[in-house]
Amino acid sequence: MKDTAMIIPTYDDMLAAHARIRPHIRQTPVRTSDHLNELTGAELFFKCENFQEPGAFKVRGAANAVFGLDDAQARLGVATHSSGNHASCLSYAAMRRGIPCNVVMPRTAPQAKKDTVRRYGGRITECDPSTSSREETFARVQAETGGDFVHPYNDPRVIAGQGTCAKEFIEQTDGLEIVLAPIGGGGMISGTCLTLSTLAPEVQIIAAEPEQADDAYRSFHAGRIIADDAPKTIADGLLVPLKELTWHFVSNHVSDILTASDPEIVAAMKLIWKHLRVVMEPSSAVPLATILKNKERFAGKRVGVILTGGNVDLDRLPWMAG
Amino acid sequence: MKDTAMIIPTYDDMLAAHARIRPHIRQTPVRTSDHLNELTGAELFFKCENFQEPGAFKVRGAANAVFGLDDAQARLGVATHSSGNHASCLSYAAMRRGIPCNVVMPRTAPQAKKDTVRRYGGRITECDPSTSSREETFARVQAETGGDFVHPYNDPRVIAGQGTCAKEFIEQTDGLEIVLAPIGGGGMISGTCLTLSTLAPEVQIIAAEPEQADDAYRSFHAGRIIADDAPKTIADGLLVPLKELTWHFVSNHVSDILTASDPEIVAAMKLIWKHLRVVMEPSSAVPLATILKNKERFAGKRVGVILTGGNVDLDRLPWMAG
Repeated sequence: MKDTAMIIPTYDDMLAAHARIRPHIRQTPVRTSDHLNELTGAELFFKCENFQEPGAFKVRGAANAVFGLDDAQARLGVATHSSGNHASCLSYAAMRRGIPCNVVMPRTAPQAKKDTVRRYGGRITECDPSTSSREETFARVQAETGGDFVHPYNDPRVIAGQGTCAKEFIEQTDGLEIVLAPIGGGGMISGTCLTLSTLAPEVQIIAAEPEQADDAYRSFHAGRIIADDAPKTIADGLLVPLKELTWHFVSNHVSDILTASDPEIVAAMKLIWKHLRVVMEPSSAVPLATILKNKERFAGKRVGVILTGGNVDLDRLPWMAG
Repeated sequence: MKDTAMIIPTYDDMLAAHARIRPHIRQTPVRTSDHLNELTGAELFFKCENFQEPGAFKVRGAANAVFGLDDAQARLGVATHSSGNHASCLSYAAMRRGIPCNVVMPRTAPQAKKDTVRRYGGRITECDPSTSSREETFARVQAETGGDFVHPYNDPRVIAGQGTCAKEFIEQTDGLEIVLAPIGGGGMISGTCLTLSTLAPEVQIIAAEPEQADDAYRSFHAGRIIADDAPKTIADGLLVPLKELTWHFVSNHVSDILTASDPEIVAAMKLIWKHLRVVMEPSSAVPLATILKNKERFAGKRVGVILTGGNVDLDRLPWMAG
């Protein structure tokens, strides 16, 4: 949907999204841990988006795009390129509406991710692991199918959908002072900005980013989008750069961007598994990692953390040897 | 409390327990997974007792015992022998009341379990890993401290406490037809029987047991308690035998006992981690393992499963090599 690319979604779009997607998503629970509170000195509230049926918050934006299509477009389905949670969440949403979903994925993507997309009825077209191959392949697939392009984050429908998470979070908790979410392309952070800037403008929004993929941090401080070529971090959901639409929200509403190293991210992930007893992926541990290394900033505060996703290869956990 | 050993707890005891422990436990959420429903053909509801702060349902019975003590006894504290969740949950409850908790543990118990007990202020006295050493050491500790003995399961206060889980489960769901819980000593199953036999007598209660520690299964069919010497199974929370009080409930109210092999238990555990995205221990996976191998029995039914605990060594998961 090229024509919507720089339409800035509004608070009303987010409200409409919530009404539209409610039958298709979970209102995920908020969990707490006395022990993590003691460790950090803050009062932490974890919004468990890893408990969405397909395992990530991205089902919100995907469902908003899929269920917002008119019948004519819906018959042609949707299409995207992604090797991560967006692909499986879009397939899941399309399956619920009973429409086609075409996904272009690098042939090198993990088998488990391909299996999940197929389990939800997504049709995968493989490309080489390069930007040019991906773009060529995607153009061909889209031309052949007529599927509506749903970008993983640079799409107003997607951002309005992701914003529904912050709405629930505010409704489920009292007096949050800060909300943290990981930042990759910026879809969840943008949705959070969209919602909180109207619903709870007193709440600070802090984005958390891996040191080894800190393009949003550098963009934030440079005042313009900086994109890295091929960042490498254990937080593999956060490799992609900001785009115009997410930059709009980040540059206007985010209070700060904090970073953490890969070892700090893995340590935080293990703490969450051990004390919150939820299965989440490395990307979702970045906020706690940044809280632990900036304790004075969060001490005594009521802090919301969005656990963005829970799709992780149980046979290759980051603390497993080789 | 020898004098209460064969007092059968009543439904009113369970209600009193719930009122007493409510400030000290979590009303744990009930989770579902479309994918696990598809796999089994049943409609499954998982009660997440692994989300209790100390990680197991045993905080219910422990808190009921601790907060039911009169002030004179409370000053002397509580005592138990356990190398598992009962030790940490009793320490946790005692810490909340601010009273001493003495725990006798074999010196061979995992360091992580000792660390947890100490984190909650429990005082550990080590014994040799034999029944005689444990009993001698415990007698000495109890004589020295005067701590009230809270047995891990053969105690009416403990069973009344565990029964509060089934009460919440019925309140949180509609029309459960079967409830499954793992069985070791039988504390959770007995509490479930205590509650459901009055509150929802139409609900079948099925106990799930590791094949490699199937003493309850054999007791159930023999009509008398059979205890094994030293069973070995990955489900290390289920090694202990039934005692008089739990045998009373099992023999009167349990519909059936189903068993699963260790590989089946590990496979079920991995399914729960992957699709429910919660961290739970092997013992808690036995019910799903038995459902998967007896699908016809559960197909189309609304089935409650109690996920009893979530304390597991993340560095030694059962599917990790070596």
